[in-house]
Amino acid sequence: MARIITFGEIMLRLQPENYLRFFQSDRMEATFGGGEANVAVSLANFEEPVAFVSKLPAHDIGQAAVNSLRYFGVDTSLITRGGDRVGIYYNEKGASQRPSKVIYDRAHSAIAEAVAADFDWDRIFTGAEWFHFTGITPALGQNVAAICLQACQKAKEKGLTVSCDLNYRKNLWSQTEAGQVMARLLPYVDVLIANEEDADKVFGIRAGATDVDSGELNKAGYIDVARQLAQRFGCQTVAITLRTSLSASDNNWAAMLYTAEEAYFSREYAVRIVDRVGGGDSFGAGLIYASLHQYEPQRRLEFAVAASCLKHSIAGDYNRVSVKEVENLAQGSGSGRIQR
Amino acid sequence: MARIITFGEIMLRLQPENYLRFFQSDRMEATFGGGEANVAVSLANFEEPVAFVSKLPAHDIGQAAVNSLRYFGVDTSLITRGGDRVGIYYNEKGASQRPSKVIYDRAHSAIAEAVAADFDWDRIFTGAEWFHFTGITPALGQNVAAICLQACQKAKEKGLTVSCDLNYRKNLWSQTEAGQVMARLLPYVDVLIANEEDADKVFGIRAGATDVDSGELNKAGYIDVARQLAQRFGCQTVAITLRTSLSASDNNWAAMLYTAEEAYFSREYAVRIVDRVGGGDSFGAGLIYASLHQYEPQRRLEFAVAASCLKHSIAGDYNRVSVKEVENLAQGSGSGRIQR
Amino acid sequence: MARIITFGEIMLRLQPENYLRFFQSDRMEATFGGGEANVAVSLANFEEPVAFVSKLPAHDIGQAAVNSLRYFGVDTSLITRGGDRVGIYYNEKGASQRPSKVIYDRAHSAIAEAVAADFDWDRIFTGAEWFHFTGITPALGQNVAAICLQACQKAKEKGLTVSCDLNYRKNLWSQTEAGQVMARLLPYVDVLIANEEDADKVFGIRAGATDVDSGELNKAGYIDVARQLAQRFGCQTVAITLRTSLSASDNNWAAMLYTAEEAYFSREYAVRIVDRVGGGDSFGAGLIYASLHQYEPQRRLEFAVAASCLKHSIAGDYNRVSVKEVENLAQGSGSGRIQR
Amino acid sequence: MARIITFGEIMLRLQPENYLRFFQSDRMEATFGGGEANVAVSLANFEEPVAFVSKLPAHDIGQAAVNSLRYFGVDTSLITRGGDRVGIYYNEKGASQRPSKVIYDRAHSAIAEAVAADFDWDRIFTGAEWFHFTGITPALGQNVAAICLQACQKAKEKGLTVSCDLNYRKNLWSQTEAGQVMARLLPYVDVLIANEEDADKVFGIRAGATDVDSGELNKAGYIDVARQLAQRFGCQTVAITLRTSLSASDNNWAAMLYTAEEAYFSREYAVRIVDRVGGGDSFGAGLIYASLHQYEPQRRLEFAVAASCLKHSIAGDYNRVSVKEVENLAQGSGSGRIQR
Amino acid sequence: MARIITFGEIMLRLQPENYLRFFQSDRMEATFGGGEANVAVSLANFEEPVAFVSKLPAHDIGQAAVNSLRYFGVDTSLITRGGDRVGIYYNEKGASQRPSKVIYDRAHSAIAEAVAADFDWDRIFTGAEWFHFTGITPALGQNVAAICLQACQKAKEKGLTVSCDLNYRKNLWSQTEAGQVMARLLPYVDVLIANEEDADKVFGIRAGATDVDSGELNKAGYIDVARQLAQRFGCQTVAITLRTSLSASDNNWAAMLYTAEEAYFSREYAVRIVDRVGGGDSFGAGLIYASLHQYEPQRRLEFAVAASCLKHSIAGDYNRVSVKEVENLAQGSGSGRIQR
Amino acid sequence: MARIITFGEIMLRLQPENYLRFFQSDRMEATFGGGEANVAVSLANFEEPVAFVSKLPAHDIGQAAVNSLRYFGVDTSLITRGGDRVGIYYNEKGASQRPSKVIYDRAHSAIAEAVAADFDWDRIFTGAEWFHFTGITPALGQNVAAICLQACQKAKEKGLTVSCDLNYRKNLWSQTEAGQVMARLLPYVDVLIANEEDADKVFGIRAGATDVDSGELNKAGYIDVARQLAQRFGCQTVAITLRTSLSASDNNWAAMLYTAEEAYFSREYAVRIVDRVGGGDSFGAGLIYASLHQYEPQRRLEFAVAASCLKHSIAGDYNRVSVKEVENLAQGSGSGRIQR
Repeated sequence: MARIITFGEIMLRLQPENYLRFFQSDRMEATFGGGEANVAVSLANFEEPVAFVSKLPAHDIGQAAVNSLRYFGVDTSLITRGGDRVGIYYNEKGASQRPSKVIYDRAHSAIAEAVAADFDWDRIFTGAEWFHFTGITPALGQNVAAICLQACQKAKEKGLTVSCDLNYRKNLWSQTEAGQVMARLLPYVDVLIANEEDADKVFGIRAGATDVDSGELNKAGYIDVARQLAQRFGCQTVAITLRTSLSASDNNWAAMLYTAEEAYFSREYAVRIVDRVGGGDSFGAGLIYASLHQYEPQRRLEFAVAASCLKHSIAGDYNRVSVKEVENLAQGSGSGRIQR
Repeated sequence: MARIITFGEIMLRLQPENYLRFFQSDRMEATFGGGEANVAVSLANFEEPVAFVSKLPAHDIGQAAVNSLRYFGVDTSLITRGGDRVGIYYNEKGASQRPSKVIYDRAHSAIAEAVAADFDWDRIFTGAEWFHFTGITPALGQNVAAICLQACQKAKEKGLTVSCDLNYRKNLWSQTEAGQVMARLLPYVDVLIANEEDADKVFGIRAGATDVDSGELNKAGYIDVARQLAQRFGCQTVAITLRTSLSASDNNWAAMLYTAEEAYFSREYAVRIVDRVGGGDSFGAGLIYASLHQYEPQRRLEFAVAASCLKHSIAGDYNRVSVKEVENLAQGSGSGRIQR
Repeated sequence: MARIITFGEIMLRLQPENYLRFFQSDRMEATFGGGEANVAVSLANFEEPVAFVSKLPAHDIGQAAVNSLRYFGVDTSLITRGGDRVGIYYNEKGASQRPSKVIYDRAHSAIAEAVAADFDWDRIFTGAEWFHFTGITPALGQNVAAICLQACQKAKEKGLTVSCDLNYRKNLWSQTEAGQVMARLLPYVDVLIANEEDADKVFGIRAGATDVDSGELNKAGYIDVARQLAQRFGCQTVAITLRTSLSASDNNWAAMLYTAEEAYFSREYAVRIVDRVGGGDSFGAGLIYASLHQYEPQRRLEFAVAASCLKHSIAGDYNRVSVKEVENLAQGSGSGRIQR
Repeated sequence: MARIITFGEIMLRLQPENYLRFFQSDRMEATFGGGEANVAVSLANFEEPVAFVSKLPAHDIGQAAVNSLRYFGVDTSLITRGGDRVGIYYNEKGASQRPSKVIYDRAHSAIAEAVAADFDWDRIFTGAEWFHFTGITPALGQNVAAICLQACQKAKEKGLTVSCDLNYRKNLWSQTEAGQVMARLLPYVDVLIANEEDADKVFGIRAGATDVDSGELNKAGYIDVARQLAQRFGCQTVAITLRTSLSASDNNWAAMLYTAEEAYFSREYAVRIVDRVGGGDSFGAGLIYASLHQYEPQRRLEFAVAASCLKHSIAGDYNRVSVKEVENLAQGSGSGRIQR
Repeated sequence: MARIITFGEIMLRLQPENYLRFFQSDRMEATFGGGEANVAVSLANFEEPVAFVSKLPAHDIGQAAVNSLRYFGVDTSLITRGGDRVGIYYNEKGASQRPSKVIYDRAHSAIAEAVAADFDWDRIFTGAEWFHFTGITPALGQNVAAICLQACQKAKEKGLTVSCDLNYRKNLWSQTEAGQVMARLLPYVDVLIANEEDADKVFGIRAGATDVDSGELNKAGYIDVARQLAQRFGCQTVAITLRTSLSASDNNWAAMLYTAEEAYFSREYAVRIVDRVGGGDSFGAGLIYASLHQYEPQRRLEFAVAASCLKHSIAGDYNRVSVKEVENLAQGSGSGRIQR
Repeated sequence: MARIITFGEIMLRLQPENYLRFFQSDRMEATFGGGEANVAVSLANFEEPVAFVSKLPAHDIGQAAVNSLRYFGVDTSLITRGGDRVGIYYNEKGASQRPSKVIYDRAHSAIAEAVAADFDWDRIFTGAEWFHFTGITPALGQNVAAICLQACQKAKEKGLTVSCDLNYRKNLWSQTEAGQVMARLLPYVDVLIANEEDADKVFGIRAGATDVDSGELNKAGYIDVARQLAQRFGCQTVAITLRTSLSASDNNWAAMLYTAEEAYFSREYAVRIVDRVGGGDSFGAGLIYASLHQYEPQRRLEFAVAASCLKHSIAGDYNRVSVKEVENLAQGSGSGRIQR
């Protein structure tokens, strides 16, 4: 029985090889991923019993999405099968000054057209301790937002901890819509993950003058944003991820954890990027793992940041690292010496 | 200015490498194709001025579809840009007793959601001599069927020859719908291409007991089917392609031409299949080329069959052969000796 | 809980791409496979609850073998983790007159060095109905032969049906050793799968003059061999696979089923080979499936032969086909027409 | 009708994959490129009507070169077909301290053996506004140098703006030869692109002590070189590209524009190199675009530098970027944040 | 010290992957090959001491050609280094009715521009027993034809057996030129390999009406051709290869040996082609090996035919088979059963 | 006859493509390498006559290992053929904070099970001047350690210079075993290569507080370690390589040479890593080359460091660089400008 339930969309990810632009060759890498699926895979790799809940077509493409999760030991038995299509995102990896580029083709996917009857949350949550979703899921449509709300209500009713990664996607909904829907969901959320930019866009919460591109850490500002989020929605814990984008090839990566009215700042990693998609998801998975294992706040944060730091070195949406590898980094030097 | 206009959908074709099943590896060949686009490329390779008309999104995936046509010299200036998505078909190549498998994800494509105002047929047909479409295009939706009808009317009005490949696709519409819509379009068609099975499914036209899988050529029956089609819709010429599927790896391939109340049968080729998608389209292109160049009926037919025979040896939807290569086969031995 | 248990070795399979000879390029396909693992995957693809039992190292290579099974839904929770290495086989695919070539590097693998305490058969067989192994497993070493015997005894004790594929491998043991060990195991076996050549090599059972390469089906001879096997070891059912090797590219494939003193012969397929490794295993899986679903003998046999016919068109050890695909072939024409 | 005409050689570029040395594997990337062809493709991607003029064999390799240009919408109708071979360059990509390595096999190519009668400049320039060539074209042989001179004369006669990228190639001709020939061509040139090293090698023009490898920008020196070039040949505008090679993986990239006796210096980009071939050509294309669109000098320069900065992140000779992408960089932060 | 010397050109072979047409993708297989180099590699794989003599540039492409031979143990110490380019041939593999296509770009290669002083035949032949060349080598230019003649004279002077594969290439010289030059060389040749078509084209030797494409073996005719060749030039042995091209995918392959006025016909193989380039060369190598090992005529012929039969199943120019593999086929059934 | 003899194990190296984790795709790069084989290839690329001595199975995998060396001109005639398996190492390339990971599967390889009679050192060393091995070879087993000792004794007896790279591998033996065995071998060693960490682990030799990860060069400390090594074992020369691991993507690389009681420090290179495996081996090869060519100590050291700096930019174990390329770096700027 799964200890953790994540709910959302899993998409086919089509990406040119290496640093090629779209269709520069006629081959694509065809893998799967999506915020909550990524969190599930991370947790499975941490050897946590985890189930991913979604709706997928019964055909071979839908099955391949299921298999990609089963490969890691994610419980896929709660996925509803039906609908016509698997959502797609085309991903072009950036380099140096050329940014990565994402084209979504996810409308009309099975999950986007799901109905309430597709999910029996009472059964789904049986035996579970934690429920996780992101702001992308309710953005898929009003139907899915309603399903999300039902899930949140049932989760609280059954005593699960609920976590949410705010994740605003401007191509799915407007800031206003996002603000309204998320404001209805967040009261059920115990652990909120966000970045400063999304807090502003979705809720208009901001803190003094911060230049998103400058990379200057404004500690007081981050604490202020977290405090506002915690207070407005009653979240126990707010985590803010801190990405400084130097170029498409190099980022700095750190995070802040605000819990019990205390703020903790992690070590900052200078990452040479292999694939930054799923960076935030791997942070969420790390945070869930460390929370379930009762890590102290600072260690909890360092675990989550180290997990997501490693994700940046791994191709694809999924974070393929073990607890031991994360701990080695969180507690070690990050010097990348060979492990023989 | 294009001499020939083809109108329809161009899709992204996602195919596993070699004989792998879907997602047996996480790489896909990502090329483009679609009935009328295939005909256009064939004709461009025969050095005919040809334009492909469709609607494609303005984004990079739409542009890649355009570029794939431009590569061969197809005129793409008449393509309307707009809409959200490029239709997709997943293609798994069969082998031996394992059949090829196609999964369509083409609903909601730009062309499927096109409106009449997207196409100015008067302008499109300026200077053109021939208009070609297939039964797939009107099957995309009632809107597209209506556009097709407008195109046919305008084409006849401006004196173009109109050809149509019947091409029934059961996943797009029912036999009844197909029968009704195609019956409205065929009166405008001068040259009709079909196979026995589709004639039956769409119009209930059949001729005695023929086993589709048996491969036994039933000459009288084919003539009868062609005659019925010609008479019911007033088509000048009816071509019937004759595929005998021995396995997914080996087919026999031939065709019949019925014109001016005479029937002509081509040589039959035993083809070792590299890729049979687009086989019918390459036949159509060959027929158009040979018609425009006033070939005698038997030579016209042999050219079309040789062109499509060669297509079976070429990967992808597009037929990458020159007139010279087709003539060499149509007039030669087909022994496949090296050309140095 | 798994309905079927298979027990044996899963190896890393290293194979040059396409028809390249060993190290003709410096890339290898690196997949997993092995007789009993292949049977498990086939059954999982038939949506049967199936578990594969073996021993695999705890490191990443061992884990990858586990994951390759989990991908298809095979229950891997009964695999013992430990030992040093994953066995390897290098596989070079033949073509035309050039035979396929296999080089084994499987000595000292985790399963080959397993001990009795590694497997708790009582627990493993809880809830199961069927136990399957092949003649390769006891050939891995006297320790493994002894474990096999324990498994067979416990299986019978708990009322499972036991099946065995004779599968003689001359590089693992001598004919004499094989004969002695297999003679101790077969009395526990209800369903025996063999080919004529192995029956002769392992037990000296043969039937008149049959030329293995000639392809001439000698029906009476096959029946005689099956009858002798059934009588000597008390097997309820004996299946004989009938491969006629025309070349490395083309084989004919059929089988005979001898049960309740009746013999049944299947349809024969002319197969254009994509990958013939695992052909016998896919036959075994088909037979188990059809037996568990109480198919009549002729239909049972046709299902097994169709399943293994399709396997020859699929790359890798694993048979990636559904029940529906097998039934389509078993009941259809095998003409390989496109499934849209 | 093309607004811009470029003239030169397009070659087959053979390159090992990734960072492999020549023939470290037996696969090569086989693309096309060459100074003036690269400029044409860049301009086509900026949606400028542009034609590339050259001579290419009628065979499939020549046709593939044509198609590679057509793909982007470059007008190839002015290319003369004939001759025997397509020139080749073998390109090995460097990394860290290991420099890139180029081996030319371009002698005897169709364009190198072209004659004056192959090009009707009067017709070619009809309707055009701009003519571009590089110092590589006249270096292909005295015949081609003579053709270049005719083109320049006709271009001026017809009122086109003429641009030239000095581009000295020591393996094609000596400094003396280059100096003599280029001195005859430059008087026709309005916009000259050069770097400090080539100005010195071809014309002996230099400015104080500058260490090419040091990367220290010597502003006064660059201005002095540009002024000398402008004065000696009467060029209206001189652009100097400023590359600081830190290693084969990292370069700094900037440029200076000297026009109307004023000097402008661009922002400097620290580029992580994906492929630096064609970096100068993409600068030239940017400059032509910005000039034709009457950008102010500083913006003109920034556009050209941003275009070429992006080129360094794109594999192959061709710069696959849109005007919008260039403007985003020229006006933005270059932080490489994902574009969803 | 090498027992066998072969002399000729080794080229870079550029080939699209699988059955793609030229530039259908932008990757090429880049390997090396050429008639006499192929013979040398075959013989090295038979563990014969063999040296390949040629001229190759000192640069990395030339070195890669050398290394490709060294890999197999061919002695490359007698290759002269110098000149500018390695000859190239573009090879597109045919399938079914689509023939293979070869485009040569070999003019001006190092060996084509070699001079007599590049080769010290006295030193080269020291310790050797056999000298082999093909009709391609003298076709490279009058200079190379003259070098060939010197080699032949020196070989006879030093008592070597001389073999020649007639191999007419129409794109290198006319039938008349070939006839004149070859007539001067053949008197030095002991063992001549030819096919019926080349005997006719080069020397006008033919035997009754034979349809090259029909595949009907005309035994008397072949014997007549061989006898004429043997008599006109005094060759001890004439071998005629007999290819029946059914399609680009399927050929029948056999040969005839005429020696000491007796004719021997080999078994005929139905080959499913992986790569037929080098088929004749592998026959030559087999004949040389079997001759040096004093095989009886029939066995000599069967060895050569089996060796070349296997070549058709191997990608690239080089025949990668051992003596044991050839003997297994020559003496076995050719049924392609797995070798474990 | 080889001037230099190296002795050790050559393994099959299996590595996922690019930065993929183990089995993230089902393709592997399959190349060969191993400390002493790598040194031999480097020296062959420096055009030194060098032989590699080992034991390898007679089968195709063993042969491929031999061929991989022959390709570069390494003399493989002294390799003993026999035994069952080629050792394997699985190599996963790290990136950024994720370290590279090596899994060995080398037990029971042919060389690990070699016996004294497999090597006739008297014959092997005939004509040789230098003998090289690493600390990995004696770690393969007591049998191999004993063979190593015999080789060392015979080498000294015949007047060869002996070099050894200390190379401690904790998965092959304990520090105590290593210390005991290496202490018996080092008295025969003239040139010892080590790093500070191994000196400590094997012999407990250290010098003050140095943080291996910090990268702070502690010059006095290194000199002290070298002096202790030289004094304890009587080595003429001790070289200490100085790697500062900033991350798996970036290292600093330098070395110290201690000879005739003088210490020399090289320039330090900031390397962007393509493949760091074999970095130490390429240093050893550079040192041997420079020593044999009597370079002065500082130049000797700079040559070795430049050679190994370049190795980091080359995929695979083998250092594919020429003397000229090394000298260009050792004497140049390392700015990585294109070599045309």
